[in-house]
Amino acid sequence: MKLLKVDTIQQVLEKMEHHFGDIKLDVELMNIEECVGRTAAEDVYSDYHIPDFNRSTVDGYAIVASDTFGVNDSIPVFIDVIGQVEMGKSTDIVISKGKTAYVPTGGMVPPGADAMIMIEHIEEMDSRTIAAYASTAPGENIIKVGDDVTKGDKLIHKGKLIRPQDVGVLTAAGIRQISVFEKPRTAVISTGDEIADPFGNLQFGEVRDINTYTISAMLEEMGAAVTVKSVIKDEYELLKSAVEAALGNNHIIIISGGSSVGTKDVTAKVIDAMGEPGVFVHGMAVKPGKPTIVGKAKGKALFGLPGHPVSAIIVFKVLIGHYIAKLMERENFKFQIPAICSVNVHSSPGKETFQMVELQRVEKGYIAVPLYGKSGAISLVSRAQGYIRIPQNTEGINKGESVMVELL
Amino acid sequence: MKLLKVDTIQQVLEKMEHHFGDIKLDVELMNIEECVGRTAAEDVYSDYHIPDFNRSTVDGYAIVASDTFGVNDSIPVFIDVIGQVEMGKSTDIVISKGKTAYVPTGGMVPPGADAMIMIEHIEEMDSRTIAAYASTAPGENIIKVGDDVTKGDKLIHKGKLIRPQDVGVLTAAGIRQISVFEKPRTAVISTGDEIADPFGNLQFGEVRDINTYTISAMLEEMGAAVTVKSVIKDEYELLKSAVEAALGNNHIIIISGGSSVGTKDVTAKVIDAMGEPGVFVHGMAVKPGKPTIVGKAKGKALFGLPGHPVSAIIVFKVLIGHYIAKLMERENFKFQIPAICSVNVHSSPGKETFQMVELQRVEKGYIAVPLYGKSGAISLVSRAQGYIRIPQNTEGINKGESVMVELL
Repeated sequence: MKLLKVDTIQQVLEKMEHHFGDIKLDVELMNIEECVGRTAAEDVYSDYHIPDFNRSTVDGYAIVASDTFGVNDSIPVFIDVIGQVEMGKSTDIVISKGKTAYVPTGGMVPPGADAMIMIEHIEEMDSRTIAAYASTAPGENIIKVGDDVTKGDKLIHKGKLIRPQDVGVLTAAGIRQISVFEKPRTAVISTGDEIADPFGNLQFGEVRDINTYTISAMLEEMGAAVTVKSVIKDEYELLKSAVEAALGNNHIIIISGGSSVGTKDVTAKVIDAMGEPGVFVHGMAVKPGKPTIVGKAKGKALFGLPGHPVSAIIVFKVLIGHYIAKLMERENFKFQIPAICSVNVHSSPGKETFQMVELQRVEKGYIAVPLYGKSGAISLVSRAQGYIRIPQNTEGINKGESVMVELL
Repeated sequence: MKLLKVDTIQQVLEKMEHHFGDIKLDVELMNIEECVGRTAAEDVYSDYHIPDFNRSTVDGYAIVASDTFGVNDSIPVFIDVIGQVEMGKSTDIVISKGKTAYVPTGGMVPPGADAMIMIEHIEEMDSRTIAAYASTAPGENIIKVGDDVTKGDKLIHKGKLIRPQDVGVLTAAGIRQISVFEKPRTAVISTGDEIADPFGNLQFGEVRDINTYTISAMLEEMGAAVTVKSVIKDEYELLKSAVEAALGNNHIIIISGGSSVGTKDVTAKVIDAMGEPGVFVHGMAVKPGKPTIVGKAKGKALFGLPGHPVSAIIVFKVLIGHYIAKLMERENFKFQIPAICSVNVHSSPGKETFQMVELQRVEKGYIAVPLYGKSGAISLVSRAQGYIRIPQNTEGINKGESVMVELL
């Protein structure tokens, strides 16, 4: 086994960038209504103008605006009604000065008209005449051809996380399917002789398997597919066959537990046995989460997470979440919450520290209240809404200081 | 049809609170790994201590701490090794002064020991003796029984949105299933003679059906089930039968389009025809989104959204999103993003205004940059990351002012 010094998070991310650059996802065509939460794998352009006809935004009358210039409540202008436009239908009416036609909201404004006067501002004198009581500017109450989107406009860019309103703009352009990145396929393997089915009867000394469940849920929340979930005893041969099998069909293998320097540490040995380059990170300067392993073999990404559930969650967020976003070429979409720290928080010398916090809403922002408890309590992470990162070699955070909270 | 004056958003929310208070969701038992994104329908307590035995957080030796008091690098103390604890196993070793046993990370600390000395701080003299080189405090490197969770502690409270780390704490307590609220069942009906299949060939004057797709996607994103998606011509009898059919099995019926005051407005009439109290909101002082209808009939919630897609999205966010969260008794979980507004933004007199913005990250926060374009462009909403609400009867927002951005 190679001896590697402990890296900072930044160094680990740079090594991952270097080694994992050639791991790529395939793309797949999907119906747009199934794309929410997926990431666009190509730029998408519009083949049409939106709208593709001049559309009224009000119920009213299509007019030549200059007919109404100078009119007001007491001095109306009288205009001849020459027809009405039906919703969803084309029209052969042509408007000229002194002529008008009724158009409902969303209906086509006939050629010749350059404004819509709202029905609230007219009076129907008889079936052939209206009195208009408001001066109306050219362009008023009309969405013109291409006002929203012009043919050839880029609607969605590669790397965009698709949200419901993006489905909206794609539908508006009549686009049925787009290319999205396939879901990264992942295998979650927990190791440890003490790990037991969490819902069975435990022998005294055994520990419930938390990581398989938590890590799988985090992967699915990020948009990855979990193809393998298994618990393996801390034995070299058993873990080796499990990892070997998982390498076939997955992009990412996550092994939790077995990455401390204890007597039964086999994760690093197994990763090294899978092929070159093997383990390239063994230990990360982060609290909690030091015993972290990152490696590559057979063109796949392999992570060894600490067995401790809280450490595993933190390292997942920092490394694997980051990597999955990279793999999907996803732009930074995860907002952090600016907040004011409620008390002084100390840092750990030489390690980046993750401090769990609760967020309290105040009028124009949030207060971040650090949560304390026995180090690494899973109950603490469940109570927390997020965490603050305190970089190594800093003094910590002062009460009243601005912080950025990453949501959990 | 009753004549109702235009309400403010706050008034609409209060009327909804009043009328919808008796609409309830059923609860269902679900396996915890399927609960992410669902809302807890009951408080959940732990039947166990976590951990349920004193657990070592390091690879090292279980000791009576006082054996090491005063020792250091040059003055070690020698301690007799009387055994070793195996991972995941109980032990019958008992530690007393001058005795020790090896315990791996996560292993059980034998009775009698009150601290763990890390393997880095000892030297194995022979198989029966170690030299300890560090003074170790009582309790050091041990998680004691119940340190994380005490039997009877509340793990999850009713109304909590379940996240992966909550699955973690539930697994840690051996809880297989919890009660969550069923998904609210919803029907999405778009009306309008001009509305056409977005992926077919449009007749000139027709408009692609955007709302069915966008509203359904927003509902699913919020955790609701969409059981009906349909497009109906703007005819009273057709819409009436569609709504009648949808009322049977759904909690919420959403009708988009048909809620302006145009000639073909039938939504309000149909809702009134379904039963008491019928429509109780007809018009909301919001820009965009004025022609909003809210009603109740046969114990179900009915909404008439503006046909315009952007208005429909805004009204959905403000009313329906809010209501679905209420229905699930979900605590406020949607964080807003505090930001600094980059320019002056004007308000619309007498209406609450929704200004779309893009968020730009700066060192310790975000800048909200208003996006402008033709009013109600769906492309604008797709480009936006969120919006700012400008209350009615305010002067607008000044450049440099703090704002809270609601994410889209």
